[in-house]
Amino acid sequence: MTEKAQDKPQLLRETDEEARRLARTLMRDARYMALAVLDPATGFPSASRALTATDLDGVPVILASALSGHTKGLLADPRCSLLAGEPGKGDPLAHPRITVQCLADLVERPGEAHDRLRTRFLDFHPKAALYVDFPDFRFFRLVPQSAALNDGFGRAYALTCRDLLSDESVDASA
Amino acid sequence: MTEKAQDKPQLLRETDEEARRLARTLMRDARYMALAVLDPATGFPSASRALTATDLDGVPVILASALSGHTKGLLADPRCSLLAGEPGKGDPLAHPRITVQCLADLVERPGEAHDRLRTRFLDFHPKAALYVDFPDFRFFRLVPQSAALNDGFGRAYALTCRDLLSDESVDASA
Repeated sequence: MTEKAQDKPQLLRETDEEARRLARTLMRDARYMALAVLDPATGFPSASRALTATDLDGVPVILASALSGHTKGLLADPRCSLLAGEPGKGDPLAHPRITVQCLADLVERPGEAHDRLRTRFLDFHPKAALYVDFPDFRFFRLVPQSAALNDGFGRAYALTCRDLLSDESVDASA
Repeated sequence: MTEKAQDKPQLLRETDEEARRLARTLMRDARYMALAVLDPATGFPSASRALTATDLDGVPVILASALSGHTKGLLADPRCSLLAGEPGKGDPLAHPRITVQCLADLVERPGEAHDRLRTRFLDFHPKAALYVDFPDFRFFRLVPQSAALNDGFGRAYALTCRDLLSDESVDASA
C-alpha cells in the first residue's frame, strides 16, 4: 500500500434527514437481513440469514430457537451486526445498504414485550406462526449502537443510535 | 428454555455429493456475498456487502481498498465469514444459503496470483475495471475452513474445507 493511499481520508458525507430516513426505511422494510454474531467456540464472526421485524421504536428483532447458532452466539456475547438492503438489478454495489452494530437483548417470555413482538413479527411473517410458540423460541431486540450507510458509490454516511431509532420509547424489559 | 429444548440435538443431514455440489455452486455463482469481519476498533462483528469471484480452486476472493473496513479488519484478524445464496420469491428461509468460515490471505501485488485473480474478477465484474488498478486495491483469498449449508427447513449440513474446494491446486503465494 502506498503512503498516499493510507493517508487519504475516508470520504463520509454529512448525515442529513434524507440519510436518516433511508437508514430507518432499510431497517423497517427488510424482511430478512444478514446477521453476524461471534461464534463462542472459535471466535470467528459468523454471518447467516435471519428473518427480521422491528419493534415500535425501530429496533430490529429476530426470533430464534435456543438450538440456533444465533442464540448460542448472542447469549455468549451480545455484540452483533446486521446488514440490511437487498440489491435489485445491475451493479450490486449501486444499491443502498446499511451495516448496523447492535447489542442483543433477550426478550423474556412470557411478558408484554414478547406479546407485542409476537404480534408485530407475525404481521410481517405470517408463516412464523408455525414455530413462534415452540417452547425454545425467543425474540431478541438487536439494539443499534451505530451504523454505516452506503447509498451507492461515494455516498457513505456514519450514523448514531439516535439517527436510527424513532422517539417512541418502549418498555423492553416487560 | 426448557430442559427438553436444550437437550434436543441439532439435526444435521449426512453430507453427500448433492450437498457438496450445492455448496460449491452457491459460492461460485454468487456475484456478491455478505462478509463478516472483526472490527479491530471495537471487537464487534461487522457485516457488509462485497462483490465476490472465485479462484481456480473454488476459494472465494474479494477486491478491497486499503481504506475499506474489510481490509482493516482482515489485516488485523484474518478470521471472517461469508454468507452466499440470495433468496428468490416467497419465504426467504426456504432458499438455499451457506455460511462459510474463512481465513483471509492478502494476495501480493504484483504477482502471478494477482494477475490470475484480476482476470477472473473482471470476467465476472467488468465494471470493476474502473478501480481494480488503483494503487490501494488488493485481492484477498478467503480460504474456507468449514461451512454450514442450509437448503431450506430441516435440510442442514456441516461441511469441511475438502467438501468446499476443487482438487485443483493453485499457487496462491506467487
